[in-house]
Amino acid sequence: MGSDSRGILYVLSGPSGSGKGTVIRHMLQQDADRFAFSVSATTRSPRPGEIDGKDYFFITRQDFENKIASGEMLEYVEYCGNYYGTPRAPVEETLRQGRDMLLEIEVTGGKNVKRLLPEAVLIFIAPPSIKELRERLTGRGTEDSATIERRLEVARSELGEYVNYDYLALNDTVEQCVGRIGAIMQAEKTATTRMRAFMERVIQHV
Amino acid sequence: MGSDSRGILYVLSGPSGSGKGTVIRHMLQQDADRFAFSVSATTRSPRPGEIDGKDYFFITRQDFENKIASGEMLEYVEYCGNYYGTPRAPVEETLRQGRDMLLEIEVTGGKNVKRLLPEAVLIFIAPPSIKELRERLTGRGTEDSATIERRLEVARSELGEYVNYDYLALNDTVEQCVGRIGAIMQAEKTATTRMRAFMERVIQHV
Repeated sequence: MGSDSRGILYVLSGPSGSGKGTVIRHMLQQDADRFAFSVSATTRSPRPGEIDGKDYFFITRQDFENKIASGEMLEYVEYCGNYYGTPRAPVEETLRQGRDMLLEIEVTGGKNVKRLLPEAVLIFIAPPSIKELRERLTGRGTEDSATIERRLEVARSELGEYVNYDYLALNDTVEQCVGRIGAIMQAEKTATTRMRAFMERVIQHV
Repeated sequence: MGSDSRGILYVLSGPSGSGKGTVIRHMLQQDADRFAFSVSATTRSPRPGEIDGKDYFFITRQDFENKIASGEMLEYVEYCGNYYGTPRAPVEETLRQGRDMLLEIEVTGGKNVKRLLPEAVLIFIAPPSIKELRERLTGRGTEDSATIERRLEVARSELGEYVNYDYLALNDTVEQCVGRIGAIMQAEKTATTRMRAFMERVIQHV
């Protein structure tokens, strides 16, 4: 009631050291049915027991590259010689049915999702402080300085992707971070752009 | 910590029948020191006991019109032959000091504030339902049909101003409406656009 019936797509990303995995696990413990999840597509072979359309959509490299070219992949990465990505059509269908979706992707994927689905809400989970991030990245002092330098460069590059996101949820404690994301989701439901159909009905019926 | 130090200006408006006054009263009961309030300027004469700069800034008609022309009035109305409006400079100064402000204005004022201060957050408090709004507007059945028609026309016109606002907080119950506004305020603090200085510091120091 109130908001329009289309679901909202929330994209969650976080760089190394952000604690993203823990945050999402806590969100699902609060309410596992609150979001739909998309099934990824991949070009790798199914492992024993994996079911096509449930664990992954298993497709050929040619198929995958066609889908990239036609804008059918909301985002994708190439990893160890295989593609992994989010097909657009099932996401669109779920949103049309009025269900919200949660999409957990790499920090480089946000801008592509936003380009293809501008109404998606992009949330960047950020490490709590400079000090803590540095400690997490430099590890327990056993790495050589070249390894540490490489990690710092990766972190800097991943953090820079925040500019493509709508919100920045600091993860100082898991509870506070989950609270911030909850507030973002509640606020986004009341964005005027999502309430047009409702308000037009009100105005017509006054 | 986290967000940049500049305060946020929240503009609250609501048409007749929205219950805006009660909502704001409840917000202030929760925490009266959370927001600064602006002092309005007016061209009417001070009443006994009213103090210039505290109750109002009492200025001349010529002064007021000069301030409108120079963009120094964030919004204003003319009412019973006098101007009432919000001077821009004290608002800017308070935001610069890092304090959040609450500005309660007419539904027609939002677009002017947004034009002069694009980072302001505009919240439109809306009546809970078509049915309830109609009941509130038509009153207790004692008005003649011309009066009712006039009220409905005013309501339609006021409601139409929602398009100039960022968020639409439905007022079904006061508690829920206050909760929605709280979520909007929490979310806006985490908007990426307000976190740039913080994130640039993080990235530089990694």
